[in-house]
Amino acid sequence: MKLAKLFALVALCIVSLSLSALAADPLSSWNNGKAKQSIVAFVEKVTKEGSPDFIPMAERIATFDNDGTLWAEQPIYFQAFFVLDRIKALAPQHPEWQDKEPFTSVLKGDVKAAMAGGEHALLEMAMATHTGMTTEEFYTTVTDWIATAKHPKTERLYTEMLYQPMLELLTYLRANGFKTFIVSGGGVEFMRPWTERVYGIPPEQVIGSSIKTKFEMRDDKPVLVRLPEINFIDNKAGKPVGINSYIGRRPIAAFGNSDGDLQMLQWTTAGAGARLALIVHHTDAEREWAYDRKSSIGQLDKALDEAKSKGWTVVDMKNDWKVIFPFEQK
Amino acid sequence: MKLAKLFALVALCIVSLSLSALAADPLSSWNNGKAKQSIVAFVEKVTKEGSPDFIPMAERIATFDNDGTLWAEQPIYFQAFFVLDRIKALAPQHPEWQDKEPFTSVLKGDVKAAMAGGEHALLEMAMATHTGMTTEEFYTTVTDWIATAKHPKTERLYTEMLYQPMLELLTYLRANGFKTFIVSGGGVEFMRPWTERVYGIPPEQVIGSSIKTKFEMRDDKPVLVRLPEINFIDNKAGKPVGINSYIGRRPIAAFGNSDGDLQMLQWTTAGAGARLALIVHHTDAEREWAYDRKSSIGQLDKALDEAKSKGWTVVDMKNDWKVIFPFEQK
Repeated sequence: MKLAKLFALVALCIVSLSLSALAADPLSSWNNGKAKQSIVAFVEKVTKEGSPDFIPMAERIATFDNDGTLWAEQPIYFQAFFVLDRIKALAPQHPEWQDKEPFTSVLKGDVKAAMAGGEHALLEMAMATHTGMTTEEFYTTVTDWIATAKHPKTERLYTEMLYQPMLELLTYLRANGFKTFIVSGGGVEFMRPWTERVYGIPPEQVIGSSIKTKFEMRDDKPVLVRLPEINFIDNKAGKPVGINSYIGRRPIAAFGNSDGDLQMLQWTTAGAGARLALIVHHTDAEREWAYDRKSSIGQLDKALDEAKSKGWTVVDMKNDWKVIFPFEQK
Repeated sequence: MKLAKLFALVALCIVSLSLSALAADPLSSWNNGKAKQSIVAFVEKVTKEGSPDFIPMAERIATFDNDGTLWAEQPIYFQAFFVLDRIKALAPQHPEWQDKEPFTSVLKGDVKAAMAGGEHALLEMAMATHTGMTTEEFYTTVTDWIATAKHPKTERLYTEMLYQPMLELLTYLRANGFKTFIVSGGGVEFMRPWTERVYGIPPEQVIGSSIKTKFEMRDDKPVLVRLPEINFIDNKAGKPVGINSYIGRRPIAAFGNSDGDLQMLQWTTAGAGARLALIVHHTDAEREWAYDRKSSIGQLDKALDEAKSKGWTVVDMKNDWKVIFPFEQK
């Protein structure tokens, strides 16, 4: 009977742990407003067996934008800070940059002037810093940068500037059998080195923009070399394309914060059955940043109108979230 | 105490079920030769905590070629049968095909003549049958075809021509914490409608060749339209590229059967730590087909040499497999 007693004890522990987990609020950083209620109502109805809205676990796909949805994106996308830092780090190997815009401006510390060249300048900087190396070398560069670089305003690591309520949401969805994906306009190989550690999202569930790579043998060792050629832009109409290409299944829930996410939300909600579309609206100038229709970063205009007309969930960061960043809790 | 006794009973049941599962051979269709031994030895060492070869579960990525590795591929790739059937089905809408090669030959039933046009003819037929519709329409077409079309030699459904020992291998790996992926030269949207049902591999773990798609609104409903333009060819040097692009993590085990899989096997084995590379060698002319160095379908030449020189596992289908297809067991 000794063994039986032991098992009984273990079983009782499991039950009591489960009960205490049930009692704790999995979305404790969310105020009990419409946004939280719509999330919980959705999850409860799609996971309740026998419910007309029940959705089998394999189909519980949830896609999340990253910049402005899972972590902050102001005053410029964090990947843009990475680009600027890489230009400074690589400058000694590129004497020609001293006389070549947009690099000259970056090296002088004048980011605004560097950005004045628009999309073309941005692409040139991205290519100069993101290509020409092997995938393993790039992985190491990103890993080193993300471990040490700090945000100019908060002086925190970028991976500390995640949204606590969204972390809870990721965990809550996964606890309810959802598979969580990132679908971001950001570079996929810029995100993959750290998404598993900070979001619990493994590399194979991260979709993003990408450049082409080429397989070759170097000293009898196979490598993938990053080429200065765009492969895929995972933004706006590219998001449903990316979702179809990488996941091959329509999400039942999608989360974004800008017009870049509009088509993903349209694509998600156009499926049959219960669907959840949610937009994070940046309304908190004090704890974070307040911006929407006129912002050059994370512009939220058409998607905000469509959210209203279609009844999508809109998170008012100022009123819906008790805390923004995890470090506020300490 | 009643509750405790109940839990003890349940716990004991679980233990005894686990023990009986351990006793059954998970690879029962494999003869106990070198191939089986190398698989089991690999799985045991990477899953044994504390072993120097231990690999955490999140990194246990296994990639499988499809044609000739998980299901048969003779006398032509099964997707080619689909193309031929689609040409016949679509012919009434294409009167011009009566006078246009390779379509004319297909409609006359002369497959050899149709194939004489080589890669160009194949591409033309693929584009004519795989593009121009929405992704949902194509999904339905594939689903209907795979449910009814039969192989000319065995007169079985194509999804009955899976390799029983490989099905056991997929299950065995997953039971040991591996995540199993398909990495095939075949069309990704040709495979995804049925891989979950027949292999237990969900769409998001299927990588393949693809065409471009375009997001558009039709009657206020978003659709993805399949365009007559190649997006990605997931074969040879494309396989490591596809693995990096879709999985973002190097596999620790890879399974193929032809030179199209060589670079995937090189890429997999070049990683640090324990690795398994396995080639299915088609040696059984009686139960299946025997072919290798000279075959136009599934040519196995360079990869067979490299397997020998590098000590990769080579499955001799005739001697290593007790059964080939599941239907032989009945």
